[in-house]
Amino acid sequence: MLYKKSLKELADYLGGTIRGDGTCMVNGLAPLEAAGPDKVTFLANPKYAAKVAETGAGAVLMAPGAESYGRNVIEVANPYLAFAKLLNLFYVQPHAPRGVMPESSFGTNVVFGSDVSVYPGAIIGDNVSIGDRCVLYPGAVVYNGVTIGNDTVIHANAVIRERCRIGSNCVIQPGAVIGSDGFGYAPDGQGYFPIPQIGIVVLEDDVEIGANTCIDRAALEVTLIRRGTKLDNLVQIAHNCQIGQDCMIVSQVGISGSTKIGNHVTLAGQVGVAGHLTIGDNVLVGAQSGVPSSLAANAGYSGYPAMPHKEWLKAMAVVPRLPEMRKTVSALEKRIAELEALLKK
Amino acid sequence: MLYKKSLKELADYLGGTIRGDGTCMVNGLAPLEAAGPDKVTFLANPKYAAKVAETGAGAVLMAPGAESYGRNVIEVANPYLAFAKLLNLFYVQPHAPRGVMPESSFGTNVVFGSDVSVYPGAIIGDNVSIGDRCVLYPGAVVYNGVTIGNDTVIHANAVIRERCRIGSNCVIQPGAVIGSDGFGYAPDGQGYFPIPQIGIVVLEDDVEIGANTCIDRAALEVTLIRRGTKLDNLVQIAHNCQIGQDCMIVSQVGISGSTKIGNHVTLAGQVGVAGHLTIGDNVLVGAQSGVPSSLAANAGYSGYPAMPHKEWLKAMAVVPRLPEMRKTVSALEKRIAELEALLKK
Amino acid sequence: MLYKKSLKELADYLGGTIRGDGTCMVNGLAPLEAAGPDKVTFLANPKYAAKVAETGAGAVLMAPGAESYGRNVIEVANPYLAFAKLLNLFYVQPHAPRGVMPESSFGTNVVFGSDVSVYPGAIIGDNVSIGDRCVLYPGAVVYNGVTIGNDTVIHANAVIRERCRIGSNCVIQPGAVIGSDGFGYAPDGQGYFPIPQIGIVVLEDDVEIGANTCIDRAALEVTLIRRGTKLDNLVQIAHNCQIGQDCMIVSQVGISGSTKIGNHVTLAGQVGVAGHLTIGDNVLVGAQSGVPSSLAANAGYSGYPAMPHKEWLKAMAVVPRLPEMRKTVSALEKRIAELEALLKK
Repeated sequence: MLYKKSLKELADYLGGTIRGDGTCMVNGLAPLEAAGPDKVTFLANPKYAAKVAETGAGAVLMAPGAESYGRNVIEVANPYLAFAKLLNLFYVQPHAPRGVMPESSFGTNVVFGSDVSVYPGAIIGDNVSIGDRCVLYPGAVVYNGVTIGNDTVIHANAVIRERCRIGSNCVIQPGAVIGSDGFGYAPDGQGYFPIPQIGIVVLEDDVEIGANTCIDRAALEVTLIRRGTKLDNLVQIAHNCQIGQDCMIVSQVGISGSTKIGNHVTLAGQVGVAGHLTIGDNVLVGAQSGVPSSLAANAGYSGYPAMPHKEWLKAMAVVPRLPEMRKTVSALEKRIAELEALLKK
Repeated sequence: MLYKKSLKELADYLGGTIRGDGTCMVNGLAPLEAAGPDKVTFLANPKYAAKVAETGAGAVLMAPGAESYGRNVIEVANPYLAFAKLLNLFYVQPHAPRGVMPESSFGTNVVFGSDVSVYPGAIIGDNVSIGDRCVLYPGAVVYNGVTIGNDTVIHANAVIRERCRIGSNCVIQPGAVIGSDGFGYAPDGQGYFPIPQIGIVVLEDDVEIGANTCIDRAALEVTLIRRGTKLDNLVQIAHNCQIGQDCMIVSQVGISGSTKIGNHVTLAGQVGVAGHLTIGDNVLVGAQSGVPSSLAANAGYSGYPAMPHKEWLKAMAVVPRLPEMRKTVSALEKRIAELEALLKK
Repeated sequence: MLYKKSLKELADYLGGTIRGDGTCMVNGLAPLEAAGPDKVTFLANPKYAAKVAETGAGAVLMAPGAESYGRNVIEVANPYLAFAKLLNLFYVQPHAPRGVMPESSFGTNVVFGSDVSVYPGAIIGDNVSIGDRCVLYPGAVVYNGVTIGNDTVIHANAVIRERCRIGSNCVIQPGAVIGSDGFGYAPDGQGYFPIPQIGIVVLEDDVEIGANTCIDRAALEVTLIRRGTKLDNLVQIAHNCQIGQDCMIVSQVGISGSTKIGNHVTLAGQVGVAGHLTIGDNVLVGAQSGVPSSLAANAGYSGYPAMPHKEWLKAMAVVPRLPEMRKTVSALEKRIAELEALLKK
């Protein structure tokens, strides 16, 4: 699996610049502490700059001008991105297409693109379209009327329900559910009458969905995840939500129905967002926060109810001191009462 | 898929009353803003009453006496419920039974009711009973000894473990797990000895279970979800819990072992409830709250530890002001000390 | 399924001591309140000691010296553990091996140990090794290059992704995902470039994984769950985490990337732990807490940010009184201003 490349070749591939010996041969990547002379490592966080002096790596990916401590260096504007690209180069083999394998199943009027792989146990309904080079792992289930773009990977036991549309270059991790019925019921005086959820889910291109994450279909129209957005594991997206481009939705976040989220938004782990809200572009919400009302763009928020992040940090710093503060206030009350008594004498 | 109905026919179907032209023909439903002359819309929230003046809908479902702005109206006591019923009428096709399809699998002593659909990739164990008109989608797994009532739908890759009993007219969304082993271990001085979980889960009629939701089997007896209760996605119900009738358990709620929940209880998203508690009828718990002790019936609670909802709102309003309050208290201390010094001179 | 044992036989099996009639025959176990004369019950919590007087059980498992109220007793050091062992003895039938059943599927170079059971719909990739007496339920998916020890049970629709290593005597509940891609992306100035996740997950022996729980594979090396640790349902373990031995990770906990957790740690339900932290041995974190920084060993923590449990309880007790306290502080300000005015006259 390992093959060798010269630093020169890697620099050319990355559009970077060599400092040191471009003929040095390497065969893979490793962290600063663990890398040997046949490995490339990277320095992305200046905090770890001193570790470069001690690394045994054959070369270090770093930003222009960073201290090399005599190591071979490939200078690149974004060392972390360069590292990711080399990981792909060294370790990720292109998926060799397997075709539609015998123990899978598909219905009528299914269109397969070229070079697909449909593994045993994958089940596809009727009137489905699957793009070029798609991979459906075992137990992936695609209901009737679904369309899937090119180069999309659907892992084992993920489910795409009826009529949902999945873009190109998407990755659906195992067990994810796209298009489950939204949680909509009309109280009928006694119990709850289920409101038919007749809409769909649309994932645009380059969307990635984590393991066992759930995205509910819209009641009437579309639950939409825009281009480039990534959802981590065990996330809940309720019906009629719209999530913008290039968002990062971290594990165990829950977003209630009909909420609209802008572009480049990050919701950290276990955040909850109420329904029918608007979250502006470039918002960052800290872990475990609760968002009961809309949030203006270009700011960070935390806590419950979510407030500007710095305000919340200050408030949280007081919480452990509340019992002491309460005692102080009681003591002050007594002292004032004494002073008042003294003065009124 | 669209067929036409007169307003008169719809009013008769709903038990409603026409104001305006009962011969007007419509073919579906749409929101107030989007509806054209061949669509019915609805007004449920008085907040949107003014939108009726501008809707292009052929008719509006509304409560008796609401302002019609000259639109055709079907008066009904519960416009939202009427809307849900018409969605069913116009858009939901009865499931055409497919029978037990060839690429599914079932064990010995399996009893199928009439008009079932068992899709390719659905797997059924031994000694299972499946009622009339049930649908098992691909990858649904039913272990040995399970019984399922009539008209129940089990979506793709949902799992019903051994001996659990599912009622009639239930819906299990994709990936849900019914009857996983409860999280019970006896410390043995070093590690943990697993306590066999030999009980079951019982879902009564009209229960709906969200995608990737988990309901653990009881240690000895029954984990019970009563008639009409709806669970959203990614909910956790631990072993031995009992949930009453017509409850709404919203996404990502977790309920610990042996807790009993009354009827008509609503737990909003991401709520956590500790074990061995009793939650009274008609309780409403706000999103992300933590419930460490039992809650009396007929009230709303929020926060951690859950307190009456209004109290909690007031307390939360103070939180962002805590740093300022702390400074004030410090300043008061100094001012009092000065006064005391002055008076003791 | 029920067979009879004398109390003498049970005492010998447990290494316990009879008080009362060792010839008494029983056929199973039941709770204190429900047990009849043919059942054994147990007293583990001294709180329930008085119930022994009223139980109808044929015998009670209890600690040496506890009051028997004239009941037959089997004295054991750990009655709860003894109860768990008898549950196994009476109710858990050894799994009769079924072999590799016809409607399952496996790839090339798969090695099966003796007495395995591979159910219909289980799918196994290439180059997989499965130990003796393992059970793979329907829809379990094992990707290429996985190794599984002896006596491990993989329930329906669980997924083990490529090259992960599962120990012996593990239990994977339905729908769990082992080895999903970690949530790692390099910002490229516009969107996010996926960082290949080329590491694996290792579960040591005696690990149990709850339903729909997700454990991400490491970016480069290993996400590790050590011997004896139990994870409940819907837990999220991010890439590169290391969890020690004999930990209890309760439902809906989320642990961010690269965090190291010691031995004998308990994280209660819905706890969130940030990334790159170290949690010491024997730590207990209370339900719903948020852990933004490392925690020292041998202590209990709660709240957000997690603080010593007792401190947090005291702080929480003040929260409902904050509005009142705020009013008091305002009133004090006025009274002081009056006193100051008086004195400066």
